Amino acid sequence: MAELSARSGVPVATVKYYLRAGLLRPGVSTSATRSTYDSSHVQRLRLIRALVDIAGLSLGDVQRVLTAVDDESVSMHDAMGSAHSLLSSGARPSAAARERVDRVVESLGWRVAPDSPNRAGLAAALAALEDVEHALSDQTLRTYASSMHDVAEADLDTVPTADRQAAVHAAVVGTILVEPVLTALRRLAQEDVSGRRFGG
Amino acid sequence: MAELSARSGVPVATVKYYLRAGLLRPGVSTSATRSTYDSSHVQRLRLIRALVDIAGLSLGDVQRVLTAVDDESVSMHDAMGSAHSLLSSGARPSAAARERVDRVVESLGWRVAPDSPNRAGLAAALAALEDVEHALSDQTLRTYASSMHDVAEADLDTVPTADRQAAVHAAVVGTILVEPVLTALRRLAQEDVSGRRFGG
Repeated sequence: MAELSARSGVPVATVKYYLRAGLLRPGVSTSATRSTYDSSHVQRLRLIRALVDIAGLSLGDVQRVLTAVDDESVSMHDAMGSAHSLLSSGARPSAAARERVDRVVESLGWRVAPDSPNRAGLAAALAALEDVEHALSDQTLRTYASSMHDVAEADLDTVPTADRQAAVHAAVVGTILVEPVLTALRRLAQEDVSGRRFGG
Repeated sequence: MAELSARSGVPVATVKYYLRAGLLRPGVSTSATRSTYDSSHVQRLRLIRALVDIAGLSLGDVQRVLTAVDDESVSMHDAMGSAHSLLSSGARPSAAARERVDRVVESLGWRVAPDSPNRAGLAAALAALEDVEHALSDQTLRTYASSMHDVAEADLDTVPTADRQAAVHAAVVGTILVEPVLTALRRLAQEDVSGRRFGG
């Protein structure tokens, strides 16, 4: 247990809590006071910490994600989606904003679930721009969509597909922690483009 | 004054405060109690509100941006940069993280000021990924950079270049409020790519 804690970086008390809550499978008992844990336990602890610390999920939501990860009859896509859908903010945009998003997704030919929370997320973000009279044209939106599809292809290239648990871990960490990287790259690129166009 | 407040959406008391602070040029007096304001006043109020409400700048920082906007000897690039550099979080990444960013920017051929806060922003974001053992390869980083450069070109296409005040307004609002749009598009695109690769 002390070794598992050291290797995963999760305190012993927290490991015991996850064991009691059923989030972590028990080790193999080797004596009254000792159990053996393997690398799958370390990996599971890393996934739980990523879902709690990085994605900000409650332990109830973590449990739901882990159930999808462990159920081999759930496709890899749906296992990742179970984590993904919990990352969304629960925005409730107007019907008009939702309809524009549905039209855009349709015209792009993207396969997205009709009830995907990501549709509502985009609708809310577009509505916030309209509120300050900075609405995006369809052409600008399509340019952004095309660039972000390239980003998503690169995202999925980094997901290890052989291991469901590692895949969900990579998808969650990659989705959330790569966002600041993209934000910083965009600002650096703006600086470059602005300098080329307007001098300085 | 009441009409200026109604047209800009800024309360009369706030307009008076900006006049006293020198952020807003006085109108032309037409009587002891009336002045005439024009569309440049409305636009200036919108810019101040965007800098305060959306970018979260202090009034001191707003003053600095407005000085750059009003000084015609400052290039458009530097006027936008004065707002841009104030949007950054003031991260202090390690020297090693900074050096990687400098190498990447150099290899991309981007023209970015050596002391740009956007370099520190990228270094901090990359370090956060390394901390959770999800470091990005140079190849992935270059793919992201290329996509974000396309985004930046589209960003700058929406900036009205004839009017410095409107340009800075569009750059600030566009930079910050488009971020959630890109985040939502990326997640929608991930859903599409994941579905195509892993079924579901």
